[in-house]
Amino acid sequence: MTGPGELRTTLPAMDREARLAALRQLMAEDQLSAMWVTKPVNVRWISGFTGSNGQLLLSEDSAILFSDGRYRNQAAQEIDQAELSDQIEISIQPVGPEDGLAELKHSLWPLTRVGIESGHLSVDRLEKITTALPRSAIVNKPGIIDQMRQIKDAGERARLEAAANIADRALAQQLSDLVAGMSERDFAAQLDHKMLSLGSEGLSFDTIVASGSNSAKPHHQPTDRTFSDGDLVIIDFGAKIDGYGSDMTRTYVVGGHPTAEQADLYDAVESAQAAGVDAVRADVPLVDIDTTCRDVLTDRGYGDAFVHGTGHSLGLEIHEQPMLSSRSVGILRAGLMVTVEPGAYLPGFGGVRVEDSVLVTDEGCEPITHAPKGLMP
Amino acid sequence: MTGPGELRTTLPAMDREARLAALRQLMAEDQLSAMWVTKPVNVRWISGFTGSNGQLLLSEDSAILFSDGRYRNQAAQEIDQAELSDQIEISIQPVGPEDGLAELKHSLWPLTRVGIESGHLSVDRLEKITTALPRSAIVNKPGIIDQMRQIKDAGERARLEAAANIADRALAQQLSDLVAGMSERDFAAQLDHKMLSLGSEGLSFDTIVASGSNSAKPHHQPTDRTFSDGDLVIIDFGAKIDGYGSDMTRTYVVGGHPTAEQADLYDAVESAQAAGVDAVRADVPLVDIDTTCRDVLTDRGYGDAFVHGTGHSLGLEIHEQPMLSSRSVGILRAGLMVTVEPGAYLPGFGGVRVEDSVLVTDEGCEPITHAPKGLMP
Repeated sequence: MTGPGELRTTLPAMDREARLAALRQLMAEDQLSAMWVTKPVNVRWISGFTGSNGQLLLSEDSAILFSDGRYRNQAAQEIDQAELSDQIEISIQPVGPEDGLAELKHSLWPLTRVGIESGHLSVDRLEKITTALPRSAIVNKPGIIDQMRQIKDAGERARLEAAANIADRALAQQLSDLVAGMSERDFAAQLDHKMLSLGSEGLSFDTIVASGSNSAKPHHQPTDRTFSDGDLVIIDFGAKIDGYGSDMTRTYVVGGHPTAEQADLYDAVESAQAAGVDAVRADVPLVDIDTTCRDVLTDRGYGDAFVHGTGHSLGLEIHEQPMLSSRSVGILRAGLMVTVEPGAYLPGFGGVRVEDSVLVTDEGCEPITHAPKGLMP
Repeated sequence: MTGPGELRTTLPAMDREARLAALRQLMAEDQLSAMWVTKPVNVRWISGFTGSNGQLLLSEDSAILFSDGRYRNQAAQEIDQAELSDQIEISIQPVGPEDGLAELKHSLWPLTRVGIESGHLSVDRLEKITTALPRSAIVNKPGIIDQMRQIKDAGERARLEAAANIADRALAQQLSDLVAGMSERDFAAQLDHKMLSLGSEGLSFDTIVASGSNSAKPHHQPTDRTFSDGDLVIIDFGAKIDGYGSDMTRTYVVGGHPTAEQADLYDAVESAQAAGVDAVRADVPLVDIDTTCRDVLTDRGYGDAFVHGTGHSLGLEIHEQPMLSSRSVGILRAGLMVTVEPGAYLPGFGGVRVEDSVLVTDEGCEPITHAPKGLMP
């Protein structure tokens, strides 16, 4: 069995040069003299810096990462690991990057048009930036980097696959404990522990273990409720590698003897999920995946029980655009990593959800989650 | 040993009526006809709703929680648990709360002056709100609820204490594994597992286990590095109950035989930390706690090695205002829960940090973290 640490040494490096070049291309097209990157996950994607306080000011040929004293060493180390030491200067400012701007704006850059991440930047911080740059035009550029992050490059795909592989193996090890008397909380804690032991750097999100009537709640958090034979149990969880978190859901019945009603509900959801995965392919409208799943469940009489969207993209964030819902606009593109996760929830009775994460390709898709399906644990 | 679940049944209920009343009092003083609460942790603090998509529009005598279809059942359940069903109406809007405003603004409220959480609300969302409320005055009210949350009420104190108690017990169980050959990652995973098994609903933050030269990095994340005898190991971690996360740091030497240099460094930091805790009392300037710790370390020759602030407040967020740093303005107030966590970091050699979380009182403070101190695990 591959132990912790072995995975990562074989992962391809991130091509951060390509990301910087692509962003500067977009900036040039928009005639931006600079882009002010403030969303932490976007700072990380570009620079490799993972600290909680980092802001990146990028121009055509310069870049400065602002942080504070806590991160002096870490910033230097991570920028070095990202092989960007010759491209990104680090500026440590105790209060905020605005303090460092007085010098900058008169030397390095004209800063005539500065793009901001307006979907994330707060109203208050914009006021500070506006005060610090009274002669700059501030241009709202929401999602410009989030959109770039939608298409996963080789380094990102490898990390998502490695995380999904850990989650698959952890679940396989943990399923022998899906027995009467085990609590949701203990089952989740043990599954989490197995993922960490297998090399996950953390949890992709708080593990969901929802049993019996709790399984009718799509976002249930584990409680001290103990499993009983015949309970439906939804397990929704993921591992994380270099910030990239996996996402998979399986549903089982404790003891392995489903009632006819449970089996029908499960079969409907699994069929819907399989149909949804089959429909995934580059150039297909996003909404079609949702419609495909919803139609199967409606045909089977569970349309009203499918109370959420069909899926989402994932990467450095567990919920990224584009979503796969009934209101989605646009098409699937090759290189997206998306979940397909229909579910049906019957209050008082229980629920079922089945989810895989798949890489969209020109021919169809490649699932990265591989745990066996079926109600028998 | 108290098992999972037993703790919580004895915790006092949150007094949400008092929170609503206090917020409405502040709104009246500011002549706000409504307050638009968008920061998730503030939505939770007021209403009990924990979903990722929730916005609360509060007037003098009405309140609406906006969410989407995923949270229909959960919102109803959590508002009910918070005993606010008769006070907070739930409005499910597929796209965003702005859709529901057209009716609202003509019936329920005049909405002449609407406060927003401008420290958190994004530039883009403000534009949507402004469009939806063209005749309302939008008033920036950053931190109005965050400030209310600074003083912890009885229900909050009990949850922070319960979380800290779990962390204390988990560490006591885990210390037998602080031995040569154990990896940072495995030690952290096992400590996390123990906290979850003892009833923690999750981690307060990603557990820090920093050994040997890694201990010189204040925010190190666990790696596959294995402990060797003589390594300094910093362990910084916390458990979580009902969203309230604890925070404690201890530093040990593997094998229990520190060098004279390690012992001197440790003694300096522990002395600084003790002096800092001794200085905590209502009405003392925040900056004094930082100065107290920094003076001890400077006297001992480690002033330059103390590269971060002395502490922060904690509650539903792990880093809350006020901070205890050299730039802090204001005074300690009874009911604050703060950390006191000086550290000293010598690149290449290693580091030491010692941290307790304490409740500020009129007489001094009451630590809620109780794990024994000292370099011997």
